[in-house]
Amino acid sequence: MGPGRFRLNPDRNMPEPNGQSPAMRYDPKTFRGLTFHDALPGFRDGSDTPRAYLERCLEVIEAREPVLQALVATDIEGAREAADASAERWRAGRPLSPVDGMPVGIKDLLETRTMPTQMGCEAYRGNFPKCDNAAVAALREAGAVVLAKTVTSELGGAHPGPTTNPFDPARTPGGSSSGSAAAVAAGMLPAAIGSQVGGSIVRPAGYCGNVALKPSKGAINRGERQASSQSVNGVHANSIEDMWRMAAEIAKRAGGDPGHRGLSGPSDPPPAEKPGRLLAIEGAGWSMLNDATKGAFGRLLEGVAAAGVTVLRPADDPSLAALDAELSRASAICYAVIGWENRWLHRALADMGPDAISFRARQSLEAAEAMTVADYHDALAGRVSAQAAWARALETVDGALMLSCPGPAHIWAGDRPGEPPLARPTGDAVFNTPASILFAPAVSMPLMAVGGLPVGVQVMGGQGDDARMAGFARWMLKTVEPVAV
Amino acid sequence: MGPGRFRLNPDRNMPEPNGQSPAMRYDPKTFRGLTFHDALPGFRDGSDTPRAYLERCLEVIEAREPVLQALVATDIEGAREAADASAERWRAGRPLSPVDGMPVGIKDLLETRTMPTQMGCEAYRGNFPKCDNAAVAALREAGAVVLAKTVTSELGGAHPGPTTNPFDPARTPGGSSSGSAAAVAAGMLPAAIGSQVGGSIVRPAGYCGNVALKPSKGAINRGERQASSQSVNGVHANSIEDMWRMAAEIAKRAGGDPGHRGLSGPSDPPPAEKPGRLLAIEGAGWSMLNDATKGAFGRLLEGVAAAGVTVLRPADDPSLAALDAELSRASAICYAVIGWENRWLHRALADMGPDAISFRARQSLEAAEAMTVADYHDALAGRVSAQAAWARALETVDGALMLSCPGPAHIWAGDRPGEPPLARPTGDAVFNTPASILFAPAVSMPLMAVGGLPVGVQVMGGQGDDARMAGFARWMLKTVEPVAV
Repeated sequence: MGPGRFRLNPDRNMPEPNGQSPAMRYDPKTFRGLTFHDALPGFRDGSDTPRAYLERCLEVIEAREPVLQALVATDIEGAREAADASAERWRAGRPLSPVDGMPVGIKDLLETRTMPTQMGCEAYRGNFPKCDNAAVAALREAGAVVLAKTVTSELGGAHPGPTTNPFDPARTPGGSSSGSAAAVAAGMLPAAIGSQVGGSIVRPAGYCGNVALKPSKGAINRGERQASSQSVNGVHANSIEDMWRMAAEIAKRAGGDPGHRGLSGPSDPPPAEKPGRLLAIEGAGWSMLNDATKGAFGRLLEGVAAAGVTVLRPADDPSLAALDAELSRASAICYAVIGWENRWLHRALADMGPDAISFRARQSLEAAEAMTVADYHDALAGRVSAQAAWARALETVDGALMLSCPGPAHIWAGDRPGEPPLARPTGDAVFNTPASILFAPAVSMPLMAVGGLPVGVQVMGGQGDDARMAGFARWMLKTVEPVAV
Repeated sequence: MGPGRFRLNPDRNMPEPNGQSPAMRYDPKTFRGLTFHDALPGFRDGSDTPRAYLERCLEVIEAREPVLQALVATDIEGAREAADASAERWRAGRPLSPVDGMPVGIKDLLETRTMPTQMGCEAYRGNFPKCDNAAVAALREAGAVVLAKTVTSELGGAHPGPTTNPFDPARTPGGSSSGSAAAVAAGMLPAAIGSQVGGSIVRPAGYCGNVALKPSKGAINRGERQASSQSVNGVHANSIEDMWRMAAEIAKRAGGDPGHRGLSGPSDPPPAEKPGRLLAIEGAGWSMLNDATKGAFGRLLEGVAAAGVTVLRPADDPSLAALDAELSRASAICYAVIGWENRWLHRALADMGPDAISFRARQSLEAAEAMTVADYHDALAGRVSAQAAWARALETVDGALMLSCPGPAHIWAGDRPGEPPLARPTGDAVFNTPASILFAPAVSMPLMAVGGLPVGVQVMGGQGDDARMAGFARWMLKTVEPVAV
């Protein structure tokens, strides 16, 4: 496997008006996404092979990619070689790991030595550093089949790529991990790497009905991509088993971010665990929801309570009320941190020419250029204060439940000349900035549908509680009846 | 000022046998390096200008660079434009900062938009990302004149560049910030940026007689270069005033590393402050010193004590003895951390071809490839334990004094065919790994000479005590008689 043989979809780097085709209805009670862990018995007994599994993925890609537009590049030849090598290992009874043979997608912010890394940004068109990000190198060491680069919104920011929602191509898949979320939901891949600094894993996971892990800060090595104090690499999948195994196998080999111990927890997916007490957070985004979403979330909480979990509200305890107040400022804090930390690179990119970055990225840069070090200090202090409030709340509850996204994905067909551009075409991160500024693990669960579209729900824990949150999510996915309204 | 006009010294990217020319004798009592802060009155009253200052630097460069080989690239045209613009501002009485007009060198690990960034590494030959590192952008904002890229040993590691020691061209200048240390000592530049992950600022500063700041971890924004949990950007200069102002003006504009508040302390150079109690550390490198160096350090400590500072030894207090024991493992911990954190990138570089990285870098990579996540966890735990020991020691002392380098610079004339290559041609970091793993600020002071060559002494403090250490150093440089043996 080497560079130069990838297939590039050049129109995937930049956004285009979405195609229009009829919506699929999504029902969380019946939807079954493509998983990998349940293929392993077939690999062991010879009734299936990683190569055959890959070919099934390629068929789905061929059928759905023209509308979904989730993949920036594919390395089909390299993937077939890797899948054949994996098949040999399974045949010999010596797989490298439980993700040996798993076809994976890599968000196009992370470097891959077999495909370019263009970050959805004109300034990086043709960028091909020919090296693997630490997490990608670890996946290859574990035998995973690195099949595709997935669409990211520009530089992981607000400006969208061309990807459509797998359940309605007229709608956004969310972002910035748009392609990872959509490809996993569409059955092109069982799992993909995403990353989140504001809301870029959990929101698209929520809009696309993924199971997803936004881990604790530092849990999965970002390699050379360390310039944000808040961003994390995470996993989109269709089951807790695949989600956890992919994260654990990376962390076992590449560790965490420099200076961090990395993901803690077992190699095997944590067993289902019933939470004792969960805080239900409506959050600063509650007022932007439609009534159907509000009602569905209320019914879901009733189901969680009916299954024996004590569901608390902010008003039930002063520490919970204090947390709720702190989190009302999460988006402001989050955008100040991101703006300041992106300032140096984005300024350099902006200087490269008028088309090097989008007007949305220029707007963000303009806001960041107006900041002083003191503004950044204020944002850091706000983050520390919110983290302290969350630590105090965790003396009362085991975690928190909140929506993954502000209702079902909205309609988005590209910026139109003469019309004011949407500020956040991939959706608002208001339900995601809390976990981001808290450095907290969050697992998104496909537990709701509103109007035939997925709306995810996330469970968020204390820093380092990744395995416990995966166990809580596994329990909820098994026990709590999904709500479709 | 724009790219494309720099002058590249193509032979500066790779090491060459050093030129041979007669040694200068160094005496710390009489040596006066080029400073900038004392030029400001001339700028204010019109008797001098930043352009004239720059031209004087260029004359020294022309005279000394053929033997010193400290600069990888220069941007003379850009520097003259920047100096003229600065002269205008001084004339108008509106300088941007106290470093407005200061010609500076930038270690060739940091990106500059006006000159290539080749990192002393064949794999990066011709690399020209055309953007400024955050610290470089901040210097330009403050009006500094970005004149040159300075030689770094390969990727900041063990494999040396061609730079010679300014006081004896047959000897190493130290590394990895070889060019920054040598250019400042030679009077080519009043100040330059260096960086340290193991010993790369303080050791060359010690071998070259610089005043230098290896700041607390996170004190000066490294921009996109965050893949090490331990490395810092710092400053080489010839006075505490220039050293502090350069660091402070960067931190004021670019802040610290992402998630860090950045350098704390005043904008103005901290006033001289007499330390109360200092711990004298002989350190794990003591046995490799010649007797003259040991004797000189002893005499220096006597001088410090005679000036009224209480000088303690590890045996004087259990907390100090415990620290001494922890620090005996500093180099082992340091190299494990560095090896693991460099592994992903260096593996990718090694894969680029047989000549992409040096045999020394390949040896380090081989050691790193043999590590497991558990080995890295052990190193992190060792670092945390050493930091705790230092925190306890700081209840007893205000800081520590130790050598900056293992005696005077050794002779180094390049690897010779048929002879076993030296493992560490730029010197051993044994006196530097303590401050590196402690995340501690250290200021190197030109307080000793052994055999006509500089031997620096460093004062090290608690994390965040950068300004205090600068004040201690200022006091010592004023008060303590240098020792020449």
